[in-house]
Amino acid sequence: MALKSKMTRKAADAAVDLSRNRIVIESISHEIDGGRFPAKEIAGQIFAVEADVFGDGHDCIRAAVQARRERGGSLVEVEMSHVINDRWRGDVTLPEIGLWHMTFIAWRDLFATWHEDTSKKIGAGQNIALELEEGRHLIAAALDQSPLLKARPKKALERLLDQIGAAEDEAKQKLLMSDDTLDIMRAVGPRSNLSQYERTVTVRAERPAAAFSAWYELMPRSWGPNGQHGTFDDVIARLDYVRDLGFDVLYFPPIHPIGKTNRKGPNNVLTAGPEDPGSPYAIGGQKGGHRAVHPDLGTLEDFDRLVAAAAEKGMEIALDFAIQCSPDHPWIKEHPEWFDWRPDGTIKFAENPPKKYEDIVNVHFYRDALPSLWLELRDVVLFWVEHGVKIFRVDNPHTKPFPFWEWMIADVQTRHPDTIFLAEAFTRPKVMKRLAKVGFTQSYSYFTWRHAKTELTEYLTELTTEECRHYMRPNFFANTPDINPWFLQTSGRPGFRTRLVLAATLAGNYGIYNGFEVCEGRPVPGKEEYLDSEKYQLRQWDFDQPGHIKDDIRLINRIRVEHPAMRDFTNLRFYNATNDDVLYYGRMDAANDSYLLFHVNLDPHGAQEFGFEVPLWEFGLPDEASIEVEDLLQGNRFTWHGKSHRLALDPQARPYAIWRLIPPGGGR
Amino acid sequence: MALKSKMTRKAADAAVDLSRNRIVIESISHEIDGGRFPAKEIAGQIFAVEADVFGDGHDCIRAAVQARRERGGSLVEVEMSHVINDRWRGDVTLPEIGLWHMTFIAWRDLFATWHEDTSKKIGAGQNIALELEEGRHLIAAALDQSPLLKARPKKALERLLDQIGAAEDEAKQKLLMSDDTLDIMRAVGPRSNLSQYERTVTVRAERPAAAFSAWYELMPRSWGPNGQHGTFDDVIARLDYVRDLGFDVLYFPPIHPIGKTNRKGPNNVLTAGPEDPGSPYAIGGQKGGHRAVHPDLGTLEDFDRLVAAAAEKGMEIALDFAIQCSPDHPWIKEHPEWFDWRPDGTIKFAENPPKKYEDIVNVHFYRDALPSLWLELRDVVLFWVEHGVKIFRVDNPHTKPFPFWEWMIADVQTRHPDTIFLAEAFTRPKVMKRLAKVGFTQSYSYFTWRHAKTELTEYLTELTTEECRHYMRPNFFANTPDINPWFLQTSGRPGFRTRLVLAATLAGNYGIYNGFEVCEGRPVPGKEEYLDSEKYQLRQWDFDQPGHIKDDIRLINRIRVEHPAMRDFTNLRFYNATNDDVLYYGRMDAANDSYLLFHVNLDPHGAQEFGFEVPLWEFGLPDEASIEVEDLLQGNRFTWHGKSHRLALDPQARPYAIWRLIPPGGGR
Repeated sequence: MALKSKMTRKAADAAVDLSRNRIVIESISHEIDGGRFPAKEIAGQIFAVEADVFGDGHDCIRAAVQARRERGGSLVEVEMSHVINDRWRGDVTLPEIGLWHMTFIAWRDLFATWHEDTSKKIGAGQNIALELEEGRHLIAAALDQSPLLKARPKKALERLLDQIGAAEDEAKQKLLMSDDTLDIMRAVGPRSNLSQYERTVTVRAERPAAAFSAWYELMPRSWGPNGQHGTFDDVIARLDYVRDLGFDVLYFPPIHPIGKTNRKGPNNVLTAGPEDPGSPYAIGGQKGGHRAVHPDLGTLEDFDRLVAAAAEKGMEIALDFAIQCSPDHPWIKEHPEWFDWRPDGTIKFAENPPKKYEDIVNVHFYRDALPSLWLELRDVVLFWVEHGVKIFRVDNPHTKPFPFWEWMIADVQTRHPDTIFLAEAFTRPKVMKRLAKVGFTQSYSYFTWRHAKTELTEYLTELTTEECRHYMRPNFFANTPDINPWFLQTSGRPGFRTRLVLAATLAGNYGIYNGFEVCEGRPVPGKEEYLDSEKYQLRQWDFDQPGHIKDDIRLINRIRVEHPAMRDFTNLRFYNATNDDVLYYGRMDAANDSYLLFHVNLDPHGAQEFGFEVPLWEFGLPDEASIEVEDLLQGNRFTWHGKSHRLALDPQARPYAIWRLIPPGGGR
Repeated sequence: MALKSKMTRKAADAAVDLSRNRIVIESISHEIDGGRFPAKEIAGQIFAVEADVFGDGHDCIRAAVQARRERGGSLVEVEMSHVINDRWRGDVTLPEIGLWHMTFIAWRDLFATWHEDTSKKIGAGQNIALELEEGRHLIAAALDQSPLLKARPKKALERLLDQIGAAEDEAKQKLLMSDDTLDIMRAVGPRSNLSQYERTVTVRAERPAAAFSAWYELMPRSWGPNGQHGTFDDVIARLDYVRDLGFDVLYFPPIHPIGKTNRKGPNNVLTAGPEDPGSPYAIGGQKGGHRAVHPDLGTLEDFDRLVAAAAEKGMEIALDFAIQCSPDHPWIKEHPEWFDWRPDGTIKFAENPPKKYEDIVNVHFYRDALPSLWLELRDVVLFWVEHGVKIFRVDNPHTKPFPFWEWMIADVQTRHPDTIFLAEAFTRPKVMKRLAKVGFTQSYSYFTWRHAKTELTEYLTELTTEECRHYMRPNFFANTPDINPWFLQTSGRPGFRTRLVLAATLAGNYGIYNGFEVCEGRPVPGKEEYLDSEKYQLRQWDFDQPGHIKDDIRLINRIRVEHPAMRDFTNLRFYNATNDDVLYYGRMDAANDSYLLFHVNLDPHGAQEFGFEVPLWEFGLPDEASIEVEDLLQGNRFTWHGKSHRLALDPQARPYAIWRLIPPGGGR
């Protein structure tokens, strides 16, 4: 057809351009904010990618996801399959850590369509002589693309066409309709109307510790003998203690020199005595800033030895990255342009009006601080990376600009893709999610304040089923130096056991701060602060005192490591226990045939009895079926007959139960 | 700071680049699929645009939405305000129809932050001498951007600074902390860290009929006198009938020549008699194709007169756009490359195996048909636009490629932005939504098959509250020539009244197909087809026969037009009626002070009594308050005392009630 006008020619070009993507591909599970941010997965582990895929009309369509590394390199192509209601799914494994770019393709499979239609006509007893000829044409057309075909499938198609050409009616029909023919055409038939999703979807593949780790937090200065200031060597001497409990990340609050100006005394009083060590968060003094270690802890060489010793025992050291400075920090003289100054020439202290924090000052990130401060902060991180630290807990990231984190984390991870950043932000939901989107590997959470069954169920359902599961990985801390939770202040030992089990089995990453194992919960009255907090003074710990819960910790950490279902926190499912004080949930990993059930008594003060249903339906079993079960606390193995059961949990005995299901044919 | 390496220089550039958007703007309400498709709104009407906006730390931030026409022209800027939980909202009105591009900006308001912090310090009795000096600096800084300031605010700032300079402590504080100062700084203070959302969000502003219209469908050939083939002139003669019922769109199934080959007879039999008119969907014959009118209906000039006569009475003509062809369509000879041919040289009929449709053939849209067919189809639409038709009901769009619709509708609307396309797709949810996204103005819906209270509530909640509300506008047809709903086949007259009220008051667009007003529901036994359907034969209609529901239709259409609350279908809210057969809902339009309540008895066979609550809480009224109410059926006005009331609806009397609330101070 001759195109008359310039306007029509432009329209024709637009039509041809748009026509390329005939098959609709949309709603990609891993596309965060229209492709603005990468999703997160673990290298080497299978994960499901989903998309809506459909065409016009009723033709058979097919779809695949392709994943590429940033600079050429590996290409992974996985065919997707239809799940339900135009939702398709592909099970992808990314072999290496780093950024991957996923494209989604779909096409019409003309031979499969022909096969389906012709089958229906055969079923209705219609004459299909012409259809058979059409089928032969489709095979011939597949051969026509022979430059793209490998020798083997080309040969197979040629032989097939010869056979069809030689066959009479019935034999011809049999050949054309055979599964073999369908299979070969499926494999090498043309991808008609090959369409591609308009955007690239980025996934950061990370190492397992990004999603699965058990943290133990301590302040080295309290780990010295007989009340003396602890050193890195003191910690080295007690690495076995932490390792024996089953932790794999050992995390220290800041280990840098501490300022003297306006130093805080015990229990956060405004004036410190001459011997008071001050808050480790008042970073920087005469002996240096963010690249220095506090001289009382040892030297950088001591620190290096500690990192190496931990690695030998299978542990990593995590450091705090806290950007604020003591008024004595060397940066203040070296880079006055990074700080805010007042009209009278004094430096502006940190404040949250009307509250003031006189022992710290904050940098600002713009004006003359951009980019010099940004580069320096990144270089601080790189400095510690070079000293073997690959995990950083970042203090209060929500009070620093999001673009800084996005840039800094990406820059560091480009050089060291195995670096992990944990965001210590206890703030509004969207702020926490944004921090995860801009790059934080893990996020502190509201877990510390979620105790009731409905609260836990609602919060975990959000974390494990909503879109945020693709980019935000919670790290459930049961306590921290800053949070002595109300619940634990009054719950006694049973509450510590309960919170341990919840933290360690509801999330992939979890942590405790030392003292938890001996149920330390004495508060500054009316506050969620520890009395005589290590933040302002040295403490001496006796972790062997009566009432410790180290056996629980060892057991739970062992269960976490031994059972694959514990590794992906999104496999959590809640089940019904007929008691509002009992949380009942499963971690169900069909790919690894690993199925655990958990009953936790949330009431630390009384025994709770309840009915529950074994989720036989998860395995396609009827209500009256039997299933083998292992009691992971006692180690014995027995059989549950039928769906309905009863149990009681006494917090004084054991406030929780953990079961492994062994469905028929299973048994990992 | 000197930058040492090339790598660091690159990193520094990246940091500066990212740093530009310090304030986070995300989750824009009107961004469809990451900006891939425009949202839809009505020009001249207020609508709420929402976004998540937040910064790091606790500074006061502000945000605005800006909207621009495609080629320069008008710019609308609306400041947004914080609603809850970091969600912000701006009330936007787009003055002209066409495509608008929205950008979102946000900034830190340093003076507002200073004002808030200083207020807190004053409240705590702190010395604020330095703070006052800092406040003065901020005002001076605002003046420093004076090239950007207009003369008047510049003068105001200068005077303010003079006054502050001359004032002593207390007067200075009063000046700096005054509302006037806050207001002027709010208006002209610098937009610190001005950030912009990375993508542009597109909104198509359309004319009111896109969202609010009442359709009446008829086949002109049945509107002749005494059983003769009707003509356009016959329809002209009866325009008053349709107008009097209150409809504003008069929609005809195809009016083109009908093919003779394999013509269908009455009730869809495979062979037609010599006098049988055939299906109007078998388009094209000796007398022409998609640009011709059936000679028995009249001439193109007759059609033009009909369009003009309808317009004079405030009605528009909507035409069917059905792409399939009769085997006699002229395109088949003129453009054999648009059709599928079989190995024996015959044309491929439409089929849905094992079903065959021998009276129609389908075009295909690719290979040699691209772009010539696409251009021709668009030109067919433009042809009818030039004949005054601006509304097209598109037959089965889901069996034609989505890219074709996206291109064609955009192309037509670029030339004629007032064109409206209704998608007649009864298919899977995602397919229907995609059609709406690629450009269809309105969409047929599942309403025809939603009868129960839970079904209606669930479906309408999806349509009016989920993301699709921004791009998919339902058109609720109570019946069509293709759908004689099961419900109406047995409901009798009460069911017709019920379905009328539901269709007309749950959606902005709705329609009926003629015969509905006389409760026609005789089926082909066991099918949702009308017996003796007009699709295959002429019918004679007597719309004055006993039992008609024309009074209901007139009343409901009048209520729709008179009450602003009926115009935006997303203002629907469901309330609780204590009876599963009674649907109770409101259309609540606070901007126009228009509040309607509806009670509908869904059971056509029995009276239903129920309790209900007047939603006093919507107006901030306590449970025991009184509210004025108008019965829109009887016209009387009275007072409801308190929240709880009872009512009974007898389907034989009137199966519905409609109330207008007049809250204290209201009264539109």
